[in-house]
Amino acid sequence: MTTRGRFITFEGTEGVGKSTQLQVAASTLRDLGMDVVVTREPGGTPMAESIRELLLAPREEPVNETTELLLMFAARAQHLYQKILPALESGQWVLCDRFTDATFAYQGGGRGVAKERIAQLETLVQGDIRPDHVIWLDAPVETGMARAKHRGALDRFEQEDLAFFQRIRDAYGERAAASPGRYRRVDASLPLTEVSAQVSAFLREICFN
Amino acid sequence: MTTRGRFITFEGTEGVGKSTQLQVAASTLRDLGMDVVVTREPGGTPMAESIRELLLAPREEPVNETTELLLMFAARAQHLYQKILPALESGQWVLCDRFTDATFAYQGGGRGVAKERIAQLETLVQGDIRPDHVIWLDAPVETGMARAKHRGALDRFEQEDLAFFQRIRDAYGERAAASPGRYRRVDASLPLTEVSAQVSAFLREICFN
Repeated sequence: MTTRGRFITFEGTEGVGKSTQLQVAASTLRDLGMDVVVTREPGGTPMAESIRELLLAPREEPVNETTELLLMFAARAQHLYQKILPALESGQWVLCDRFTDATFAYQGGGRGVAKERIAQLETLVQGDIRPDHVIWLDAPVETGMARAKHRGALDRFEQEDLAFFQRIRDAYGERAAASPGRYRRVDASLPLTEVSAQVSAFLREICFN
Repeated sequence: MTTRGRFITFEGTEGVGKSTQLQVAASTLRDLGMDVVVTREPGGTPMAESIRELLLAPREEPVNETTELLLMFAARAQHLYQKILPALESGQWVLCDRFTDATFAYQGGGRGVAKERIAQLETLVQGDIRPDHVIWLDAPVETGMARAKHRGALDRFEQEDLAFFQRIRDAYGERAAASPGRYRRVDASLPLTEVSAQVSAFLREICFN
């Protein structure tokens, strides 16, 4: 019988180094002999990536906050049932750049959508499926935003102001405090080699659990 | 004080003549001095029309039924809050080609999504907003499908089989029976002039109520 893989998500505000750490994490796990899938939200399948484009494109039309919330969960349903669950069931470990914790942080903390509305959709879409582990790369928002701005054109979220990202960081902090067993906070303002070392150490720890 | 306009939706399976009857209805109301907006779902704003394209495009990737359901409601939230409600509040009458009754019929009846899930999203997105009147253009599905097929390339829904559309028609029938005050069934298999006469007569009736 195949042992089900683990579902590990990487969370944090803009420019905290999620993409780099996802690669570090994938290498660490592969060196330990695991079969690893690296994916991202919103996105992860062709249809979900099309939804991502709709969500991120800057546009003149104001985007209703419920529209944004439902598009996030529409992409998630597609990603979860077409890609994440089949991978986990075949024994692969899934490393995902953002998941529902990001919806609580961005749409909840950032946009001010009531947590109860998000929780209702979480249950509707996911049933009782939750990530096994959340690695939260945490750094002061100013640090991350300075990095993100060097990447080029800003998407509809990156165009928001500092206060928006501060609310998101605070929301991650609340979720981490509420789920200490599931969340692992890593100080992403440390030098890159130190952040990578902490992420790798954590993954080795859970691999042998 | 401006009197709030009425929200009237047109429902039915493929090829029953909704587009034609929407034009007939708009003319009838304009002749009676009403300011009329004609719109459609999914769609009605640039962003909601982009969601429509995602929904209708035939694709190789199987579309998860929850993804489809959430995309319908994402488009609806955008349409409702950016266009329909502002129009109604300014006194315009809104005639809409499909609305949430179609979600109960297509995703509920057609795809087999539980009614409770749809009702939960209806409340989450719409609160207590419902169409004032639903004009249901009803005809045997074979009749409508024969007409729809003459229009050219079939979208992802039009490619479904007869049984799918039969379940949709049955679902409309159930909803009409459950809300006789809100639903007006028009026999769309009658000659066009007769269907138009019935639609116009109904609109004159509600105009003077």
